Amino acid sequence: MNRKQLIDAVKEQMPAKRWEHTLGVMETAVMLARVYGCDADQAHLAAVLHDVCKYWPVKEQGDVIRENGLPADLLEYDKEIWHAHAGAFIAKRDYEVNDEAVLDTIRYHTTGRKQMTLLEKIVCLADYIEPGRDFPGVERIRELAEHSVDKALLVAFDGTILFLLEKGKKVYPLTIEARNSLIDDLKQAHNKEEL
Amino acid sequence: MNRKQLIDAVKEQMPAKRWEHTLGVMETAVMLARVYGCDADQAHLAAVLHDVCKYWPVKEQGDVIRENGLPADLLEYDKEIWHAHAGAFIAKRDYEVNDEAVLDTIRYHTTGRKQMTLLEKIVCLADYIEPGRDFPGVERIRELAEHSVDKALLVAFDGTILFLLEKGKKVYPLTIEARNSLIDDLKQAHNKEEL
Repeated sequence: MNRKQLIDAVKEQMPAKRWEHTLGVMETAVMLARVYGCDADQAHLAAVLHDVCKYWPVKEQGDVIRENGLPADLLEYDKEIWHAHAGAFIAKRDYEVNDEAVLDTIRYHTTGRKQMTLLEKIVCLADYIEPGRDFPGVERIRELAEHSVDKALLVAFDGTILFLLEKGKKVYPLTIEARNSLIDDLKQAHNKEEL
Repeated sequence: MNRKQLIDAVKEQMPAKRWEHTLGVMETAVMLARVYGCDADQAHLAAVLHDVCKYWPVKEQGDVIRENGLPADLLEYDKEIWHAHAGAFIAKRDYEVNDEAVLDTIRYHTTGRKQMTLLEKIVCLADYIEPGRDFPGVERIRELAEHSVDKALLVAFDGTILFLLEKGKKVYPLTIEARNSLIDDLKQAHNKEEL
C-alpha cells in the first residue's frame, strides 16, 4: 500500500468534515517536523493515521481495546481517548505500519505520556493547532509553537486538564505525567542555557 | 506517651503560629469524624501529627525520605509534599504510632491517593477547611463538607491542581489518582441513589 492508497483508505474511515482536520494535522505536523528537525515522513504517516478509528462506533473502539490486550484502564476514562490506542493497533494490523515510533505517536497523540519523543510531541501539538482548530487560547499555542514545541504543548495540556477539571471529568494519569515531563524538559533546557 | 504528652511534644516541632493550624485541623477532623461515622480518636491522632516535620529544615525532610527508603520520586516534586511521607515515618519512629490507618492518613494528607479511606479523606479535608484557613473558595468547600466529604474534597483537589497549573508546577500523580477516585466514588453513590 503506497502513501496515496493509504490516504484514500483512511479517508474512508471518517466523515468528510473530519478528514479536513486530518489534512490540517498532516500539514502542520510536516511543517513542525521540518522546523524542529524531526523525520517529516514519520510525522506525515502518523498524522494520516492518528484518527483512523476515532469515528468508528464507540463500542467497536472499546472492542479493539478489550479483545487485543490494550490497557484496560482506558475504558474507565473518557471515550475520547480510546481511539488513540485503538488506532495504533489498527494502523499496524490493517495498514501495514510497523515503525514503532510512528505507532507510539498514534498511540499517545491524545493523552501524551512521560518523556515523549520529539515526533510524539509534534503530532500531538499539530492535533491541537492545525488550521481548522478554533478554541479559546489556540492562537497563543500557535505563537508558542513557532519558538518551542515544549512550551506550546505545556500550554495545550494545561488547557485540556483545565477543561477536564471544569467538567468534573477524570484526567488520564499519562496526561499529568506528560505535563510533568515537559516541565522537567523545559527546566533542563533553561539550566543548560544558563551555563 | 499519653495524648497530652504527645501534643506537647509535637507542638515543640513548629512555630506557635503553625501550631494554631494543627489545633484547627484537630478540631475539624474530630468534628467531621463524628458527623460521618469515622473513629474520632484516629482522626485526632492523625491530625495532631499531620505536620509534625513540616517546619523542619527542608534538607532534613529530604534526608528522612532518602535515608529510609521512602518514595524517591517525591524529591522531584514540590518540597511542600515531602513532610507528609516524612511525617508518617517520624510518627512511627519517634512518637510510637503503630496504627497503620493513622500512619497512612498522615502519609497521604497532602497528596491524597487512589481509593482513600474515610479517615484519610477527613483529615485531608480538615487540613483544607480548618477555621484558620482563608483562601479563595474555602467557604464553598466548608459548605460542601456539611453534606459530602467526597464533593468537598473534589473541589479542594481541583483548587490545588488549578493552582499548580497556574504556577507551572508539576502535579504529583497521586493527586490526580485521588481526584479520579473521588469522581468514581461520587458516580457510584449517585448510581446507587438512582436504583
